[in-house]
Amino acid sequence: MTSTKADIKSPEGKLGVLIPGLGAVSTTFIAGVFLIRKGLTAPIGSLTQLGKIMVGKGENTKHVPIKDFVPLANLKDLEFGAWDLFQDDAYDSAINAGVLSREQLDVIKDELKSVKPWKAVFDRDYVKKLDGSWVKKAPSLWDLAQMVKEDILTFKKERNLDRMVMIWCASTEIYQETVPGVHDTLANFEKALKENNKKIAPSMIYAYAALDLGIPFMNGAPNHCLDAPALRELAEKNKVAMGGKDFKSGQTLMKTILAPGFKARMIGVNGWYSTNILGNRDGEVLDDPESFKTKEVSKLSVLDQIFQPHLYPELYKDYTHVVRINYYPPRGDNKEGWDNIDIVGWLGYPMQIKVNFLCRDSILAAPIVLDLALFTDLAQRAGMYGIQEWLSFYWKSPMHDFDKEPVHDLFVQLMKLKNTLRWLMDVPLVTYIGTESYD
Amino acid sequence: MTSTKADIKSPEGKLGVLIPGLGAVSTTFIAGVFLIRKGLTAPIGSLTQLGKIMVGKGENTKHVPIKDFVPLANLKDLEFGAWDLFQDDAYDSAINAGVLSREQLDVIKDELKSVKPWKAVFDRDYVKKLDGSWVKKAPSLWDLAQMVKEDILTFKKERNLDRMVMIWCASTEIYQETVPGVHDTLANFEKALKENNKKIAPSMIYAYAALDLGIPFMNGAPNHCLDAPALRELAEKNKVAMGGKDFKSGQTLMKTILAPGFKARMIGVNGWYSTNILGNRDGEVLDDPESFKTKEVSKLSVLDQIFQPHLYPELYKDYTHVVRINYYPPRGDNKEGWDNIDIVGWLGYPMQIKVNFLCRDSILAAPIVLDLALFTDLAQRAGMYGIQEWLSFYWKSPMHDFDKEPVHDLFVQLMKLKNTLRWLMDVPLVTYIGTESYD
Amino acid sequence: MTSTKADIKSPEGKLGVLIPGLGAVSTTFIAGVFLIRKGLTAPIGSLTQLGKIMVGKGENTKHVPIKDFVPLANLKDLEFGAWDLFQDDAYDSAINAGVLSREQLDVIKDELKSVKPWKAVFDRDYVKKLDGSWVKKAPSLWDLAQMVKEDILTFKKERNLDRMVMIWCASTEIYQETVPGVHDTLANFEKALKENNKKIAPSMIYAYAALDLGIPFMNGAPNHCLDAPALRELAEKNKVAMGGKDFKSGQTLMKTILAPGFKARMIGVNGWYSTNILGNRDGEVLDDPESFKTKEVSKLSVLDQIFQPHLYPELYKDYTHVVRINYYPPRGDNKEGWDNIDIVGWLGYPMQIKVNFLCRDSILAAPIVLDLALFTDLAQRAGMYGIQEWLSFYWKSPMHDFDKEPVHDLFVQLMKLKNTLRWLMDVPLVTYIGTESYD
Amino acid sequence: MTSTKADIKSPEGKLGVLIPGLGAVSTTFIAGVFLIRKGLTAPIGSLTQLGKIMVGKGENTKHVPIKDFVPLANLKDLEFGAWDLFQDDAYDSAINAGVLSREQLDVIKDELKSVKPWKAVFDRDYVKKLDGSWVKKAPSLWDLAQMVKEDILTFKKERNLDRMVMIWCASTEIYQETVPGVHDTLANFEKALKENNKKIAPSMIYAYAALDLGIPFMNGAPNHCLDAPALRELAEKNKVAMGGKDFKSGQTLMKTILAPGFKARMIGVNGWYSTNILGNRDGEVLDDPESFKTKEVSKLSVLDQIFQPHLYPELYKDYTHVVRINYYPPRGDNKEGWDNIDIVGWLGYPMQIKVNFLCRDSILAAPIVLDLALFTDLAQRAGMYGIQEWLSFYWKSPMHDFDKEPVHDLFVQLMKLKNTLRWLMDVPLVTYIGTESYD
Repeated sequence: MTSTKADIKSPEGKLGVLIPGLGAVSTTFIAGVFLIRKGLTAPIGSLTQLGKIMVGKGENTKHVPIKDFVPLANLKDLEFGAWDLFQDDAYDSAINAGVLSREQLDVIKDELKSVKPWKAVFDRDYVKKLDGSWVKKAPSLWDLAQMVKEDILTFKKERNLDRMVMIWCASTEIYQETVPGVHDTLANFEKALKENNKKIAPSMIYAYAALDLGIPFMNGAPNHCLDAPALRELAEKNKVAMGGKDFKSGQTLMKTILAPGFKARMIGVNGWYSTNILGNRDGEVLDDPESFKTKEVSKLSVLDQIFQPHLYPELYKDYTHVVRINYYPPRGDNKEGWDNIDIVGWLGYPMQIKVNFLCRDSILAAPIVLDLALFTDLAQRAGMYGIQEWLSFYWKSPMHDFDKEPVHDLFVQLMKLKNTLRWLMDVPLVTYIGTESYD
Repeated sequence: MTSTKADIKSPEGKLGVLIPGLGAVSTTFIAGVFLIRKGLTAPIGSLTQLGKIMVGKGENTKHVPIKDFVPLANLKDLEFGAWDLFQDDAYDSAINAGVLSREQLDVIKDELKSVKPWKAVFDRDYVKKLDGSWVKKAPSLWDLAQMVKEDILTFKKERNLDRMVMIWCASTEIYQETVPGVHDTLANFEKALKENNKKIAPSMIYAYAALDLGIPFMNGAPNHCLDAPALRELAEKNKVAMGGKDFKSGQTLMKTILAPGFKARMIGVNGWYSTNILGNRDGEVLDDPESFKTKEVSKLSVLDQIFQPHLYPELYKDYTHVVRINYYPPRGDNKEGWDNIDIVGWLGYPMQIKVNFLCRDSILAAPIVLDLALFTDLAQRAGMYGIQEWLSFYWKSPMHDFDKEPVHDLFVQLMKLKNTLRWLMDVPLVTYIGTESYD
Repeated sequence: MTSTKADIKSPEGKLGVLIPGLGAVSTTFIAGVFLIRKGLTAPIGSLTQLGKIMVGKGENTKHVPIKDFVPLANLKDLEFGAWDLFQDDAYDSAINAGVLSREQLDVIKDELKSVKPWKAVFDRDYVKKLDGSWVKKAPSLWDLAQMVKEDILTFKKERNLDRMVMIWCASTEIYQETVPGVHDTLANFEKALKENNKKIAPSMIYAYAALDLGIPFMNGAPNHCLDAPALRELAEKNKVAMGGKDFKSGQTLMKTILAPGFKARMIGVNGWYSTNILGNRDGEVLDDPESFKTKEVSKLSVLDQIFQPHLYPELYKDYTHVVRINYYPPRGDNKEGWDNIDIVGWLGYPMQIKVNFLCRDSILAAPIVLDLALFTDLAQRAGMYGIQEWLSFYWKSPMHDFDKEPVHDLFVQLMKLKNTLRWLMDVPLVTYIGTESYD
Repeated sequence: MTSTKADIKSPEGKLGVLIPGLGAVSTTFIAGVFLIRKGLTAPIGSLTQLGKIMVGKGENTKHVPIKDFVPLANLKDLEFGAWDLFQDDAYDSAINAGVLSREQLDVIKDELKSVKPWKAVFDRDYVKKLDGSWVKKAPSLWDLAQMVKEDILTFKKERNLDRMVMIWCASTEIYQETVPGVHDTLANFEKALKENNKKIAPSMIYAYAALDLGIPFMNGAPNHCLDAPALRELAEKNKVAMGGKDFKSGQTLMKTILAPGFKARMIGVNGWYSTNILGNRDGEVLDDPESFKTKEVSKLSVLDQIFQPHLYPELYKDYTHVVRINYYPPRGDNKEGWDNIDIVGWLGYPMQIKVNFLCRDSILAAPIVLDLALFTDLAQRAGMYGIQEWLSFYWKSPMHDFDKEPVHDLFVQLMKLKNTLRWLMDVPLVTYIGTESYD
């Protein structure tokens, strides 16, 4: 991996952000960008907008804003396109989501009204709890993919875009493992599209369309779409950036903060029980056991990599890890997590920690969408293609090459991200990068 | 600072651990060492005993036990000496503390019985809620210091010790700032000792005795004893290691885990309210407002350094930070913390996190005593004297040179500790050390 | 005590509600009445408006709305008068309190604007954390009392009122015990008023003015004003109803729900720790130790009467009860309580219950003000004067005759209240009344 | 219903307590009785042993111990017989359950060792997560019932018992509704027993055997056995007392304490979410969805009767009620509940209450077993047969006649119980009894 500052293309011109799913998360993201552009609010939660990076040493140490350190697209140059299975524009959808106050939304009503979704590619077998009528119809999945590409190309022309990124903000699909003969090679995959093979999920069709057009794809849900070798082959072939999966927003974020802390102090863990109550569309979708399974796998994977039971059997062998999600309408878009953690100290004495997180799902996810859009665009301009491991910081279930382990420790993820920026800008690294292991 | 592997003296021979305060923390530590020596339990919570360090790169990466990586004293070579204002031996004191089960203590009753405290240097004006009769009497503070030195030298001879370290495990004293003419120079300090100056706290007398004998002193309470320039001058003169203050065991540990997590994600904080209930002697002592003040200052200092409000005013300007401790006898030695954290996300939307920590104070503190004894001894053998900043990992309120800022982020502290070990052993560093700033 | 339906005067004509303190609680109450009158919201939390009472037996059992069962004043006949040390009208004060949304307040802006406070009787020695300029000035306390009476009489004439009640909704004053020669007889009290005796608190001046005019006085704060025998003598003399003290709104309400539950099941209690965080003016006032003491006494009294340790020593002897209140500005008008309860079961085994109450102080208190206004007016019309024990349901620290014990169990309080209504209306009682003891 | 003191048979002679299920609850109960008999501990949690009842009025009011007020069997006269599908005696089973300390159990080891279970009637289709080998085998269910009767009669003769009661302390079976032709009449039921009909659950066989011998049956699990009209017919025919179902021990107990409190104050409820973590055999059994359904129905029924949404639609219409149970082995016999309650106050403003109950299931259930044994025996001696509604106090899901509603409010239940005792002893009632409705 060699790179220099000079190789990175300038972020001039407009950047299109393509979003499957115009719901709570994406409207909160879009509305926020509109409000920030007007100077009405601060982009809290966004590393690209508020973060600083330390450069220099000793007395010459400076903390430089990240957006001044690396060449990122400017918020004023963002354009938004979206697909949804309901016809509501971004204003109506935001009102319906109930995340932001009507007062705040009314200030940017015109801008939001102008974001009208294209018809979605949707198959109810993949999301059993949802149904909508704003759906594309075509003889084959292949044709659906072409229709998505047409949406994109028309949008690019109309808005005079220089570059695009696609970020999945739609629902969790049912659990779908890689099927040989369908998902394994690009040739098989394209054949299966034409043959209307039911093993191809809608999210794969969007990903295929984006990657085929050379547009990076980032997967905010736990869907396994990018795990298909066929799509990785396509990304490689077209030299496109990709990444995922599942925005790390609430309870899992807390886990990747707390677990490294216990580990640092060599405190053992006997059990970790997590329950969540959600009242929005997301909660309704996850009330279906098949969609929940996809989410559960994503949520359960986190602790093992951090605890490394093979290195620390006295501390982490055979701990119990339970994750539950319950649909509870009174909570609305506010998600609430309750964690019970059974820790073990000196001489095996047990202690307990309870964490009650009254969080707001979309509020935590929206700045992640923004950061991913800007960093992914940066990566693409810098010629970094394939899985963007340096963005593991943002994912509940970070993707990685097949022969590697993901990193879950939030603090190592942050160091990895910042050092990648330093590496891109040719300033001395601080630590951990590339093929190094993690401590 | 130059050092090589070859310069570190071998840890052969016996290491005496000198402990002012034979109460819950120190008896839990001592009993644990006895049980671990017998192979009856694992040293959970101890980095020196269970921790591993990553060395090498890529395919050659190894995770080496820390105790195999650096030359530490072996647990079998530890000998324990203690002072207390009650005459109870370590067995009776441990039974009374109620931390460990009688069943466990009975297995090592003989060993514990043999740890009998010397009479304490004690002044009730410094710890208003305690009173005991096992107390040294002498015409002047200077004479008291000599008596402590005699205890130490007799102990050294009797047990045939090679080296010693002193670790303060006694109570929190009332708040005491540096007084010019008393604490500022070694000469003034020794004069004040002879003149029986009431501004000299008992903890300073212990520290003076240890440092004067060339024995490192580590301060497990928030007392300001080592902040006296006089004692720093003495440590410098005799080339002795020192450090403190206040074991980072429960709620503050959680703070230095959580706060860097919020910071990493650029999540703002409006307020952090912490309350504690304690039922043991520690709680009783802190029920006195003057002792509490010392503790409060120690506990409040943590967040500012992590949040850096001067760099991130949008996120951390003017947050409220309240810390309370209440004496609540039903809790016994189990300490319980309840934290409410008001965080702020995208567009200024508020969220809340509540953390309820049912912890066991002495269980969390005991392995810290062990690690500090072994690492401090290592430092002394390696010729590292003065404040041991690399051990900040263990302190609520880490000491540092007057012109520097302390580090509170647990993850940076851990990296600093591990890299110092790498530096000592002459293997490539991973990051952050010496005069570098923190990101 | 004899009474019949026929003896109760009709509630025709207007009822003036006189309120010292136009802050969060009283503006929330007043705004609510305006909104309910317009049919825009339901009077949730109000027994007079939503409660039902069971009458008849077996198949003839009916659940009759309380307001149809007893002759209560109609909400449309209420008129509001208030005193405050700030000049803000009810609209501005409500906006400032931050309890109700501006959207809701704007609907009734005109009505709220018309409630303008009279200048307050205020003495900063009694509420150290507050200061305001909208304050009456006069040569003596006696003159201040006359000025309050003039406010009342002018208000009565202007609004053409039939009857009035006064409900203290202002701040907690510092702890003030009964002083012989000042508070003991009416004659001494009036003399002390004229002599400007500093032992007379402002709340006593309001109470004196009301009772002297034959207007019932209900005390929503823990101030001891009505504990002065002088004022009880005045109430007796003028045959006026009175009651208090301290609205039972949040944490104490929970206590009087939970404690009877443990007691019912013969579950023991070792300790009960309660902490509160408040961010409004109330919290600021209680940050002063002297005001807090008044509140603490009120809050601590609750458990003993419910647990009856003299009858159940195996269960409740020597339990620890700690109550703390902390000022925490980020919480605003939202009060938050955290309780830890250490209970004991079969064979002495310990268990724990933690209750985290995210409550809204004024929202819980406002319907109490309404119910007290209407029930007190009912009592006065029915000829019931002196302490209204049957309204214990609403008080943290229920007043009672000097030779009796207060009742704290919420369920006994409710039964007492409902049976008193049945007694008033001459229908068969269900249980407990008058001089009966409590089970 | 007419009764007088004179009609109650004396409790002289021995009382046999027959228990299907020799697990955590029953061994904790039995061990407790042995320890209490020796005077080593107090019967905390038991109304029969520690409760007092108020009699008399005014100055003559007395609080008389319940066990002195009504003629109850003495603890020294209890004898214990049990069935289980494991052969462990009560000592081994108690050690294995991990509820009581070995230290405490060893004091009464001989007594516990002597309680050896008979082979169980067991059918794995009814409890899918359990399996054991200590199981009766016979050609038909009818024959199994005869074998149970033989166990009982032999026990009666050997121990020279005067009277017996049976209390189900075994596992929750799968959900089983009444099947016409099988459970509807005694004749059909006996026919089905002989025909080995799979719709007859093991719990029904025990109940049949007990009732057929004139022995009262109390059902500590949510199994529907006593809902079978056939068994009610049998109880009526033989004039035997019966009752159930599902001991009200932890989270549901809290619900029936809290809900009446909200109701008393006319506070609305939008939602109530309850989750439980359990690590014992009970948790393992309930991890099976079919067993959980039986439990869920029992746990969900509680709130509606208390809230009476038909009378208070403004407050309780359409609230969400979710109950979850999760198997979490680190918790052991300690059960932990977490409840989130969304309440609504004045003008519809929302508030939240979170209750975290660290409870010990068997510790809470054991005194219920004792009280039920003694009170049921009292009822039988007093000639009260059929469903014992006055014992609703102890049940999560109180049984009642088909045309009535159950009472769930713990405070009404307690009054009903105490007044029934007063009625039995011919002293003036305080309130609510028989066919009266509830307020």
